[in-house]
Amino acid sequence: MIIVTVPGISESALARLIEHVEAAGLRTHVSRGEHRTIVGCIGDEGLLSDHGLTQLEGVERVLPVLKPYKLASREFSVQSTAIRLGDAADTVIGGRDLVVIAGPCSVEGREMMHETAHAVQRSGARLLRAGAFKPRSSPYAFQGMGEEGLKILAEVRAETGMPIVTEVMDTRQVELVASYADVLQIGARNMQNFPLLTEVGRTQRPVLLKRGLSATITELLMAAEYIMAQGNGDVILCERGIRTYETATRNTLDVAAIPVLKRETHLPVMVDPSHAGGRAHLVAPLAMAAVAAGADGLIVEVHPHPATAKSDGEQSLEPSAFASMMQQVRSVALAVGREPSWEVELASV
Amino acid sequence: MIIVTVPGISESALARLIEHVEAAGLRTHVSRGEHRTIVGCIGDEGLLSDHGLTQLEGVERVLPVLKPYKLASREFSVQSTAIRLGDAADTVIGGRDLVVIAGPCSVEGREMMHETAHAVQRSGARLLRAGAFKPRSSPYAFQGMGEEGLKILAEVRAETGMPIVTEVMDTRQVELVASYADVLQIGARNMQNFPLLTEVGRTQRPVLLKRGLSATITELLMAAEYIMAQGNGDVILCERGIRTYETATRNTLDVAAIPVLKRETHLPVMVDPSHAGGRAHLVAPLAMAAVAAGADGLIVEVHPHPATAKSDGEQSLEPSAFASMMQQVRSVALAVGREPSWEVELASV
Amino acid sequence: MIIVTVPGISESALARLIEHVEAAGLRTHVSRGEHRTIVGCIGDEGLLSDHGLTQLEGVERVLPVLKPYKLASREFSVQSTAIRLGDAADTVIGGRDLVVIAGPCSVEGREMMHETAHAVQRSGARLLRAGAFKPRSSPYAFQGMGEEGLKILAEVRAETGMPIVTEVMDTRQVELVASYADVLQIGARNMQNFPLLTEVGRTQRPVLLKRGLSATITELLMAAEYIMAQGNGDVILCERGIRTYETATRNTLDVAAIPVLKRETHLPVMVDPSHAGGRAHLVAPLAMAAVAAGADGLIVEVHPHPATAKSDGEQSLEPSAFASMMQQVRSVALAVGREPSWEVELASV
Amino acid sequence: MIIVTVPGISESALARLIEHVEAAGLRTHVSRGEHRTIVGCIGDEGLLSDHGLTQLEGVERVLPVLKPYKLASREFSVQSTAIRLGDAADTVIGGRDLVVIAGPCSVEGREMMHETAHAVQRSGARLLRAGAFKPRSSPYAFQGMGEEGLKILAEVRAETGMPIVTEVMDTRQVELVASYADVLQIGARNMQNFPLLTEVGRTQRPVLLKRGLSATITELLMAAEYIMAQGNGDVILCERGIRTYETATRNTLDVAAIPVLKRETHLPVMVDPSHAGGRAHLVAPLAMAAVAAGADGLIVEVHPHPATAKSDGEQSLEPSAFASMMQQVRSVALAVGREPSWEVELASV
Repeated sequence: MIIVTVPGISESALARLIEHVEAAGLRTHVSRGEHRTIVGCIGDEGLLSDHGLTQLEGVERVLPVLKPYKLASREFSVQSTAIRLGDAADTVIGGRDLVVIAGPCSVEGREMMHETAHAVQRSGARLLRAGAFKPRSSPYAFQGMGEEGLKILAEVRAETGMPIVTEVMDTRQVELVASYADVLQIGARNMQNFPLLTEVGRTQRPVLLKRGLSATITELLMAAEYIMAQGNGDVILCERGIRTYETATRNTLDVAAIPVLKRETHLPVMVDPSHAGGRAHLVAPLAMAAVAAGADGLIVEVHPHPATAKSDGEQSLEPSAFASMMQQVRSVALAVGREPSWEVELASV
Repeated sequence: MIIVTVPGISESALARLIEHVEAAGLRTHVSRGEHRTIVGCIGDEGLLSDHGLTQLEGVERVLPVLKPYKLASREFSVQSTAIRLGDAADTVIGGRDLVVIAGPCSVEGREMMHETAHAVQRSGARLLRAGAFKPRSSPYAFQGMGEEGLKILAEVRAETGMPIVTEVMDTRQVELVASYADVLQIGARNMQNFPLLTEVGRTQRPVLLKRGLSATITELLMAAEYIMAQGNGDVILCERGIRTYETATRNTLDVAAIPVLKRETHLPVMVDPSHAGGRAHLVAPLAMAAVAAGADGLIVEVHPHPATAKSDGEQSLEPSAFASMMQQVRSVALAVGREPSWEVELASV
Repeated sequence: MIIVTVPGISESALARLIEHVEAAGLRTHVSRGEHRTIVGCIGDEGLLSDHGLTQLEGVERVLPVLKPYKLASREFSVQSTAIRLGDAADTVIGGRDLVVIAGPCSVEGREMMHETAHAVQRSGARLLRAGAFKPRSSPYAFQGMGEEGLKILAEVRAETGMPIVTEVMDTRQVELVASYADVLQIGARNMQNFPLLTEVGRTQRPVLLKRGLSATITELLMAAEYIMAQGNGDVILCERGIRTYETATRNTLDVAAIPVLKRETHLPVMVDPSHAGGRAHLVAPLAMAAVAAGADGLIVEVHPHPATAKSDGEQSLEPSAFASMMQQVRSVALAVGREPSWEVELASV
Repeated sequence: MIIVTVPGISESALARLIEHVEAAGLRTHVSRGEHRTIVGCIGDEGLLSDHGLTQLEGVERVLPVLKPYKLASREFSVQSTAIRLGDAADTVIGGRDLVVIAGPCSVEGREMMHETAHAVQRSGARLLRAGAFKPRSSPYAFQGMGEEGLKILAEVRAETGMPIVTEVMDTRQVELVASYADVLQIGARNMQNFPLLTEVGRTQRPVLLKRGLSATITELLMAAEYIMAQGNGDVILCERGIRTYETATRNTLDVAAIPVLKRETHLPVMVDPSHAGGRAHLVAPLAMAAVAAGADGLIVEVHPHPATAKSDGEQSLEPSAFASMMQQVRSVALAVGREPSWEVELASV
């Protein structure tokens, strides 16, 4: 941590500042420039990070030097984390494979889940997604089927062998959802729901952690750190678009977050092109862009009849559009040296 | 809801579109312009709002006509809601009075709470704020004193008579926190934690609902709607700054949200100038701006020794700076026809 | 400038880094912490600011210490700049007076200008605003009356004695506009039109410099620095709302920019509540907020018949609404110790 | 244009509203719903677009139906525009070819331009970029070599045969710059410099139009419309990152803008990954993402010695890194069915 002082700080104010920093357990190192005197603080920045140092006389600004995340950082683990999923542990996220998760926004019933699961599996999806508990911005909108939905998911998994990714929203439901799901999803709106992060950190389940609507990359990594600090290191980060002034798309896919994260952390990085664009015709181009930029996988909304979906119909792909997207994504994956976990469908060649 | 069709939509596609809308239970009204045919949908927009209408052939865009909030809207209650607080019910938020809530970010101990409470009460604050459960972006930062902190708050209330505002972050703690607090605070990061909103909606406690970091005004009102839909109509909205690209301040106070909310809803609107600006020297000007724009009250962070605060030290006012701010705010309140709930301190005249 | 190196930088890379910095004419000061070695650079940061230092081996980040503006900074002039305007030089912006500029968005004709000028003058406006050259987002929209508009403005000034504020958009028109206007306005879209800033910097006319749609406060000050570096120190800064994700208002008034600017610069700060809110009913609350936060003046759009205005009708006040706003603003101005430059209209008491 | 009225609008207010709209030359069509009466306006929306309709009694909101751009729209030209460049007219932007423009941020001298041009040409770049007139946020920074720089560019073109792309910032320089350049670049800061757009619209030179820092996609298309309305239809759009709250990158590449633009307009779309990311290590992943999402080309900053560049050093690639990027981009281009205009360099295979 570096403290920039105001021009012409008095010697007594400087002495008090140094005393304050040292009292907190850090050492100091003073450098006198032509225009400013700066005080370097050596030691654990955390000891001072919340103090109102700028309120001390003579302090102009405080510049942190160290990054606040530890377990999630590349420095902690130079080797990338690969997460094995499913009973057979044969699906790997974060390795050379490119893995696609697909399914409807919500579990709407048994039949539509079976239909969707078979369709997306046929096109190459390895995991099935669908929400049983849904965060909806209106209290009057469909809130999900609850445990009944989880049971349907378990049935479909038994039949297809596809591991299940589903969202948990409430600390009281973590145990229940974890008893059904293979991967616990933390939605964008809960990225800084710290009790929930702590609770999923206490389970043994991998966690798919979505970036908050206006979270910085650092905040996303700090949310992962919350989960990891509880002992659960299997965190998959997910870029899903951030909120900007642009209204032509639902959110703005921050595609640069992929290479930034790849440099900052050892954790796998997936992308959700459905929420990022918010329109069905944008899903394929955004999916290809994400893979080209280095994403380890995709999570895509697919619905058999988007025009009557109970949620997210505008951005859901029909199974045929998903099949076509998977072929395009496969070409890009091969071009960037990834191993797509699926072959081209015979029917569609 | 109005559906704008693409130029030259075929009659058959138009017929299918109309059939789709009517099948959902709405009536339609077609208007053929020179460049576009539009389909007005008459009835409950909610029946169609999640459908992927834009995925139907011939649909260009869908424009909602109605507002999604009902209980929170001005149309539902032309008269402004005034919320009575405390055992004596003599503090009113949302009436002509201007009410100030003050206190430290966190309960750090018994002595500092007593000292702060007396100081802010002396300067005119009517309610005491302080967090016992703290949402912190780092898992390694001070997380609050928990129930021990709530007990200290109850003690200070007994001594000073000041009602207590404190944050609840976890559905499992709502009952506990509600047994101590006079007002339950929902923090910005939890504005769309829907299970938590539902849970506080089931209590009898007034709720101070902070706007999310990048929530729209409509989303804030929908979050209030969640609470109200459970039967708890005592919701106080709180603008606390939104996230923008500007880094000279911690957040950007959206001062226009005050008059917009005053027009859209009957609920009281408070402002948190401490989190909005994030620097102590900005608190007074932002507080005055908020009152001038029509806020019903303020919530301000005050700490006896900001430079050693365990959280938010940079934006906390010392008691003397708070006293000075209260005098400035009082003048502005009188200028805009509000009744400040405090007199000028004798000592400071 | 402080250079943070990567963990475990080699001695040879550190030596090359130091050599690079010293070759540019700065001195260095190395501080070895527990986790990072940092290199302080002493001297003129500008010598290195554009270099790609982060591309040198072993460099993690570069933190600037000094502020990039000089002439515009508070350090350059502790005393606030007060700008005298008009032939009689009896209107002062940046002193204790609160000054209001008002008028229509565009000069639409002789009669409407006379009518508006007399109306706003009667309510207390000291300067008249109106555009003869208009920046319009559509090439098919009304582009302003050009020099004919300037002539009408000069006529109205002769009649009313009100100094004229009008926009200049093109380097080729600076001389022409300066021959009519008392204050040259640089619009938000031209805040970083550097040739235009340079050109107005070469005139003797005061400049009203509007903040760009997504300009930081630092960038606004650097734009002022461009003008001042040419010898024209009479720059009035104008906050007019920034672009955010919120759509309930046209822009988001960054009211905190006022106290931030007051601390960073000696230049006067005005606020444009009309463009900030973009709706007539928001103008008065935003105007009051701006004055409460310390603005030196306001610039407000007033039109005799907003519903038929050729531009900005939605945000223009009718003369009667302007009169009422002026009374409200006057009360707030007095409450914060400003000297409003107008009395209450007799007719409206 | 659709006018949504307030609940319970009176018949007389409705009649006055209809009269107002019809007086402007549009026809009306009234639809009475359960909750709202809406007034459809049929005809040229432009006749009313600037009127303050919301200021009329009984008006709640106005929803535009038509898009404001005409010449730039897909409806105007279903066929994509392909622009032929250079003396031989053998470089085509907007066709099946993928075209790369490369070069330093600024012309810094004769030797470095020759060195860079040869290097980027060898790796597959078809056009050379470099600024002779530079928009710099500080008046004290290097402002470019001016006409001397243009002469160097012409020399290098004569030697290499590469067409030249260079920025023009001032209406007074359009003629001069157009006499040297093959493509006139309008920088992000000038995207809404309407006199400059008009002036380049009067030349015969293709224009590379960069999206403004916080411009919407609609505003970008309206800026193109300004140029096209003057008779110059050869406009190349360029996404270069937008300003958001994220600070890990210089700007946020809006990769979804590519497919949105491809649907809305027939004009070619290029991407500038250098300014978007602002860090050298982000250029290649962003370039690949852009091509995967459908970009027609790239514009990339390359400098022989980034650590001593006079501008944009942090984001400039060294020639060897550029060569490597070109190979990666080539693979992605082939995977998405584009024809990269270059072969793999023999030396680097």
